[in-house]
Amino acid sequence: MSRQSNRTTDSKKMNSELFTLTYGALVTQLCKDYENDEEVNKQLDKMGYNIGVRLIEDFLARSTIGRCQDFRETADVIAKVAFKMYLGITPSVTNWSPAGDEFSLILENNPLADFVELPDNHNTLIYSNLLCGVLRGALEMVQMAVDVKFAQDTLRGDNVTEIRMKFIKRIEENLPAGEE
Amino acid sequence: MSRQSNRTTDSKKMNSELFTLTYGALVTQLCKDYENDEEVNKQLDKMGYNIGVRLIEDFLARSTIGRCQDFRETADVIAKVAFKMYLGITPSVTNWSPAGDEFSLILENNPLADFVELPDNHNTLIYSNLLCGVLRGALEMVQMAVDVKFAQDTLRGDNVTEIRMKFIKRIEENLPAGEE
Repeated sequence: MSRQSNRTTDSKKMNSELFTLTYGALVTQLCKDYENDEEVNKQLDKMGYNIGVRLIEDFLARSTIGRCQDFRETADVIAKVAFKMYLGITPSVTNWSPAGDEFSLILENNPLADFVELPDNHNTLIYSNLLCGVLRGALEMVQMAVDVKFAQDTLRGDNVTEIRMKFIKRIEENLPAGEE
Repeated sequence: MSRQSNRTTDSKKMNSELFTLTYGALVTQLCKDYENDEEVNKQLDKMGYNIGVRLIEDFLARSTIGRCQDFRETADVIAKVAFKMYLGITPSVTNWSPAGDEFSLILENNPLADFVELPDNHNTLIYSNLLCGVLRGALEMVQMAVDVKFAQDTLRGDNVTEIRMKFIKRIEENLPAGEE
């Protein structure tokens, strides 16, 4: 589906439950379409990426946040502004690597996975993998290449849900000739 | 995906944009999976129905609304409470049939279709048809058989988006023996 470029920032606040159930329908459909969990995980990441590269425009318009000074600021903006805005939750930022290039988002509650239980035949499904793609796609649009993956998932028996983010590199902006 | 029956009613308010884009990914996937728009429309309705029969439990818990006295009260609850809760909008209720068994919901803005433009080769796609299924499924769970369909859609060039709802019958509750 194509989208018009003009966006409004009028706020339509809604509860997450219809979104949660609709996301469940999407994952279920992909499980029907693809042969194995690995393919579904890939597809969710890819869909998320395409969503992220669009969502960033809305995010920048709503949040009026400028360029982050460092990866620590980026981490805080993701957790406190972006997750709050689009999922209604605020993950904690933790487990920084000594070099400051890796951190974890810990989700106490994951709205996408509310009330979900994975069937036994899908024990390698990364149910909420769309989120990794969204983060990767959105960050790429602000010139940051970041590796994003689930390190723990309550759906798979872990105590918390943990998204691990690793800074790879700053992407050079290719400016068209004539612009500075 | 199976779901546990215990639900909490803690509110996670979120903006609609991530939901809008995720819904777009779902429709796009169905357009790849099915041969024609008619099949996609059917599938969206079916998915919506499955969502509605689950969402009603959450709705009743959150809204603490009891049984409606008549179809007019049902219409008001759908527009002012349910749409507000799950989509962040309040459609107007209008175009009542003389018998009081049909009305229209007019959506000034449809969050599902924000910024969407239908490609030329999908001009019979009822993009937001999931909503009809959700309404049908949820109402069936409170013993109301209702026909729900889009009468107008801004995505298809109409001035407004109109969902037409027609009361068919009250469904008899089949109570297990021994209960009153």
